[in-house]
Amino acid sequence: MSTTPAPQETKISLLTAAKTLVVTTTPLPAPSPTELQIEIKSTTLCGSDLHYYTHYRNGDIHVREPLVLGHEASGIVIAVGSGENGKWKVGDRVALEVGVPCGDCAECLCGRYNICAAVRFRSSGKSLPHFAGTLQEVVNHPARWCHKLPDTVSYTSAALLEPLSVAIHATRRVRKLGTLGPGSSILILGAGAVGLLVAAMCKVSGASRIVVSDINPGRTDFAIQHAFATHAHTPPREGKRPESVDERLAYAKVSAGGFDVTFECTGVEICTQTGIYAARPGGSLVLLGMGNPVQTLPISAAALREVDILGGFRYANTYKEGIEILRAGLIPQLEEIVTHKIGRGVCGVEDAFEMAGKQVDDVGALVIKVECVFGS
Amino acid sequence: MSTTPAPQETKISLLTAAKTLVVTTTPLPAPSPTELQIEIKSTTLCGSDLHYYTHYRNGDIHVREPLVLGHEASGIVIAVGSGENGKWKVGDRVALEVGVPCGDCAECLCGRYNICAAVRFRSSGKSLPHFAGTLQEVVNHPARWCHKLPDTVSYTSAALLEPLSVAIHATRRVRKLGTLGPGSSILILGAGAVGLLVAAMCKVSGASRIVVSDINPGRTDFAIQHAFATHAHTPPREGKRPESVDERLAYAKVSAGGFDVTFECTGVEICTQTGIYAARPGGSLVLLGMGNPVQTLPISAAALREVDILGGFRYANTYKEGIEILRAGLIPQLEEIVTHKIGRGVCGVEDAFEMAGKQVDDVGALVIKVECVFGS
Amino acid sequence: MSTTPAPQETKISLLTAAKTLVVTTTPLPAPSPTELQIEIKSTTLCGSDLHYYTHYRNGDIHVREPLVLGHEASGIVIAVGSGENGKWKVGDRVALEVGVPCGDCAECLCGRYNICAAVRFRSSGKSLPHFAGTLQEVVNHPARWCHKLPDTVSYTSAALLEPLSVAIHATRRVRKLGTLGPGSSILILGAGAVGLLVAAMCKVSGASRIVVSDINPGRTDFAIQHAFATHAHTPPREGKRPESVDERLAYAKVSAGGFDVTFECTGVEICTQTGIYAARPGGSLVLLGMGNPVQTLPISAAALREVDILGGFRYANTYKEGIEILRAGLIPQLEEIVTHKIGRGVCGVEDAFEMAGKQVDDVGALVIKVECVFGS
Amino acid sequence: MSTTPAPQETKISLLTAAKTLVVTTTPLPAPSPTELQIEIKSTTLCGSDLHYYTHYRNGDIHVREPLVLGHEASGIVIAVGSGENGKWKVGDRVALEVGVPCGDCAECLCGRYNICAAVRFRSSGKSLPHFAGTLQEVVNHPARWCHKLPDTVSYTSAALLEPLSVAIHATRRVRKLGTLGPGSSILILGAGAVGLLVAAMCKVSGASRIVVSDINPGRTDFAIQHAFATHAHTPPREGKRPESVDERLAYAKVSAGGFDVTFECTGVEICTQTGIYAARPGGSLVLLGMGNPVQTLPISAAALREVDILGGFRYANTYKEGIEILRAGLIPQLEEIVTHKIGRGVCGVEDAFEMAGKQVDDVGALVIKVECVFGS
Repeated sequence: MSTTPAPQETKISLLTAAKTLVVTTTPLPAPSPTELQIEIKSTTLCGSDLHYYTHYRNGDIHVREPLVLGHEASGIVIAVGSGENGKWKVGDRVALEVGVPCGDCAECLCGRYNICAAVRFRSSGKSLPHFAGTLQEVVNHPARWCHKLPDTVSYTSAALLEPLSVAIHATRRVRKLGTLGPGSSILILGAGAVGLLVAAMCKVSGASRIVVSDINPGRTDFAIQHAFATHAHTPPREGKRPESVDERLAYAKVSAGGFDVTFECTGVEICTQTGIYAARPGGSLVLLGMGNPVQTLPISAAALREVDILGGFRYANTYKEGIEILRAGLIPQLEEIVTHKIGRGVCGVEDAFEMAGKQVDDVGALVIKVECVFGS
Repeated sequence: MSTTPAPQETKISLLTAAKTLVVTTTPLPAPSPTELQIEIKSTTLCGSDLHYYTHYRNGDIHVREPLVLGHEASGIVIAVGSGENGKWKVGDRVALEVGVPCGDCAECLCGRYNICAAVRFRSSGKSLPHFAGTLQEVVNHPARWCHKLPDTVSYTSAALLEPLSVAIHATRRVRKLGTLGPGSSILILGAGAVGLLVAAMCKVSGASRIVVSDINPGRTDFAIQHAFATHAHTPPREGKRPESVDERLAYAKVSAGGFDVTFECTGVEICTQTGIYAARPGGSLVLLGMGNPVQTLPISAAALREVDILGGFRYANTYKEGIEILRAGLIPQLEEIVTHKIGRGVCGVEDAFEMAGKQVDDVGALVIKVECVFGS
Repeated sequence: MSTTPAPQETKISLLTAAKTLVVTTTPLPAPSPTELQIEIKSTTLCGSDLHYYTHYRNGDIHVREPLVLGHEASGIVIAVGSGENGKWKVGDRVALEVGVPCGDCAECLCGRYNICAAVRFRSSGKSLPHFAGTLQEVVNHPARWCHKLPDTVSYTSAALLEPLSVAIHATRRVRKLGTLGPGSSILILGAGAVGLLVAAMCKVSGASRIVVSDINPGRTDFAIQHAFATHAHTPPREGKRPESVDERLAYAKVSAGGFDVTFECTGVEICTQTGIYAARPGGSLVLLGMGNPVQTLPISAAALREVDILGGFRYANTYKEGIEILRAGLIPQLEEIVTHKIGRGVCGVEDAFEMAGKQVDDVGALVIKVECVFGS
Repeated sequence: MSTTPAPQETKISLLTAAKTLVVTTTPLPAPSPTELQIEIKSTTLCGSDLHYYTHYRNGDIHVREPLVLGHEASGIVIAVGSGENGKWKVGDRVALEVGVPCGDCAECLCGRYNICAAVRFRSSGKSLPHFAGTLQEVVNHPARWCHKLPDTVSYTSAALLEPLSVAIHATRRVRKLGTLGPGSSILILGAGAVGLLVAAMCKVSGASRIVVSDINPGRTDFAIQHAFATHAHTPPREGKRPESVDERLAYAKVSAGGFDVTFECTGVEICTQTGIYAARPGGSLVLLGMGNPVQTLPISAAALREVDILGGFRYANTYKEGIEILRAGLIPQLEEIVTHKIGRGVCGVEDAFEMAGKQVDDVGALVIKVECVFGS
């Protein structure tokens, strides 16, 4: 079946400096016994990819050598490592879980491999040498971290399993606490891709009031129109915006409700403040936004009301659940968040990043997530 | 507004012996300061009501004095206790939570009031004097245990909040364990009202494969047609049914799958056996069926695979969640389980029980739950 | 037996202004049917009492009418409400649980009555009229919130059940998360009474490394000498103390370890910062200190490592556990934290507060907790 | 340092038929890159070893080829696989975790590797070829499943980490449920090694009433004398023992208390029955005993009172906790359970099994656990 000669190299989109992508090739060994060789079909772009592209760093993490971006990806198996025969075959369609944890540390062994200190994550500038992202034509990837797709799940949806996993992980944490469940009321601060996917997972979990808040009314409108949320909230932009910490705190307090769970998906201090005030006594605040790492917070308003503050870092053991959610059609509007698709494989990546950097495209349509389409 | 003179007595349907209901009256005092006086609008009948009606006992619990049955009820407030003014008003529509726990014991104080040893439960023959059920025209009920209804929730749906609460409680237990959630696969043994409502709550919780099993294919068909379940299973009836314990165990093993959670809603030994085998390693079995109190079980098949066996007895803190679920329309097919409505208030109760005792009615239609409709 | 005529009034120690205590009397009704009348035997003083005494306010809460302080108390029953006969008798020795929640709200019904918004708490200036504290000779208290003492538990230990309850509640939260248990390593910031009692409860829970940190080496020495902690840590005081937020953050980072749980018992910002850095990935930070309500925190260092931040506000359902811990002698050194006992009942209260305000007494001995001894 | 030539073979104690042990040799390859080569110093014998020795099977599991027994073991590193240099060195003292899970399945990835279906467990007859036990002089073992010992932990204690792990795992499950903790009351049915170690872990977890029940009063006396339990219970043996299921159920009911947790460590039906009745409403029953796989149980008495029934199969992620418990001296009486030590390495194994099969030795001393001492 697989009579095509194995590729000796692969074409990659390499970030060599801020806003500088080079299309080039790199040698491609045969897959090791425990790997699959995968032709990438889709990579959707994440905010962290965009940060790296724009600034050659992401928060504190500086790129230290040319880096291939992309970590929301799906593809098709084109070669199978010798140890994986029987389990996998050429032609299997897969989603890639791109963080490869050590497998040996206390965190890995107890099932929390997302906080493994030695995890190697594709497209991140943290570990050295950098682990190349998926904006390339073919990759070898550990079979253990590939997830077989049902026929009905598209490559686009499969790429979105990565950000969906963030939402699955975050919502699972509060489901187990009992604050998210049927009939829960939820506030989500930030209506970007993560906020929308968290909203979707809250809905799947039975939440009945899902308020999405964003300063961009286009985004909250989108959330309502595509049934991610039941209610939208847009903080007023006109007039004086809160400046000092005291003003911001006062503003956050006024905006508060009595939600079972608030999800902070912006990384902005005033949103974390709001997230604390907006949770009911005994409720939860989940922190997902990557932004200001040091924030001034009304911490007593959390502690005295036992509003627990939980982090949600990436995900662990989410792909099986995510694939089943897609198979069952529980989030029919999922692909709507891909507002723009750019073809031409590695050659289209630069255009894709330019689009991803915009709030609206040239005809005024909202930009939420941009997909790089590979292959035929 | 409430210019009607307060009633001095109320008409009741009194069970005085097996299959013997008497319509009579009983004095009705004014509501105490902490009570509401409620005109009953709907009482749906439960299997335990039917047991009492048919046998003048329910399992081990014998009726020791004439008893008013009914505990799935809704109504309208017609008088407000002096201490509840401001919080309640005449005309408020309510669901009644009919178990009144002591409020003082360790179980009550820690939030598990369903297992309060001193709970008084309407229509039960356990505590003496028996606490009268809701098959009467007017009752006084503690305001704390009345739940205000949104306008959009019908009296029928409100009565169903009681069995729905059983399902909410049972599913909440496994949601917190993490075995029920988005993408879960669930087996429900028994497609009576409780089984169907558990199925509905699993769906609301995100479960994507919900198999309902019942020896009555009419019931499993119903479950599929009304979208309670995604799959139906009917054990074969023809041929030799398993007789000995060994045969039953062997049969149960063959019928097993690999479900995240199995809910046993029949009380039949072979179903509990199946529930153990059918759960995946690390899964859960929830026991809801009231039946054979002593059963021969493949307990090692549970222990060695860490299939945890959880009881679910009635409910605690479920009405708020239930009402919000109804308000939001998360179980649109809820009232479909009321297959038969009998009017004429207390005078229709006997007809209602006769119907409730049938598998199918005179025209061959399935009987699942029968409602006694009161008032205009 | 109880032939003494019932008292018509009780002597109280009334705070009328900052540092102004008046000994006076107030009428004392007979206990209501659900109350016990209790002659106070011991009240130990808490930091919040001292704040009220010193400033006539506690944080944001201003005293609005003369207030009786004291909420860590034990006593003896001298009269029994009519509804409590049979359950209680004159001569019963009791600990008082001084927060009386509403019993009806969602928080109360689900077992988290500590965050009941309508709780009335003795000696607090929050609700109006203020609910008088226990620095008086006789009080009437709801029987439900009195806890019978075994003969072997002293009045002093019984008074300490109140701050011990704070520690029981806080440690229970992390036991259920799995971060506190046998072999855990714990950091406690602040070696006042709460810090020491948290340390004791961590030890009872099986923690094997318990580091107590305090700027006062006398306190950490005390913690080691009396076997509350296994290790002491004293931040260096000499030289330049961190001033700016950046310096404080840098300092906190350097002081950090890899603890399963950190308990913040000071309310000081730099301690909360340290508490975040010092927790291991997946660990917990519990906030118990009452101090600066708004703090600048390295929140990403919590979120990205999934260090969960939990509040611990007072306690719920802790007295039964606390009494059993005392009965079994699991904290033999408990009463050591009462470093000073002042007799003379209400007349000694002023001396007690003056002592409680000192770090060391006149002979240089450490002051941790001061007890007001009442009765014979 | 390691100038001794590497061994080419190892001496083993091979079970070739019931009660037939042969001392022979088997080739020993060099350790693979991820393995350590370990000279065994101690193997303590488990009930399952004894079953295999006596019957050439253990329950349903038949030995299908000659088998080396032993899985509670410690030793010293004598060679280090090439990939483990830097992490390990010759002379490191280790405990062996002898179950090697697949590392890839859902159970492994979520931290519950004890229920991995593909686990290979030394000395078990389940997987084929059998994975040789530790009753041999030298083994190669995956470095990931070796645990470095502090100097203060003896080889005997280190071997006991295996059964202690069973106790850690079982008690951790109920600690997280909140039924085991400071002040808890516990019933343990069966005072063999597992029962005693569970008792020890309950004590470390803060339990204050620990009742151990066994039909052998020598064992319960031992439990009290060595401070494993606070109370002993011996069912009466004289007179008629319950015969029928009904008699056994009645007996079990009479013996019941109101324990927070009951641990069943015998595998005997009447004990499981007692474990259900003896748990308080909302309490837990943990099943650890290996015995009758099918039992007739009062399952309604569990379900209606929400007594949850949890399995505890082996352990996962327990060695780190266990080693810290030993280092800190939290179970000072641990080694007392080794009542008999037999030297002479593989040549002493037969004597060890003969002793392990007795209730008391030749001088009438209780036999609890027998250790095979290896090496100098």
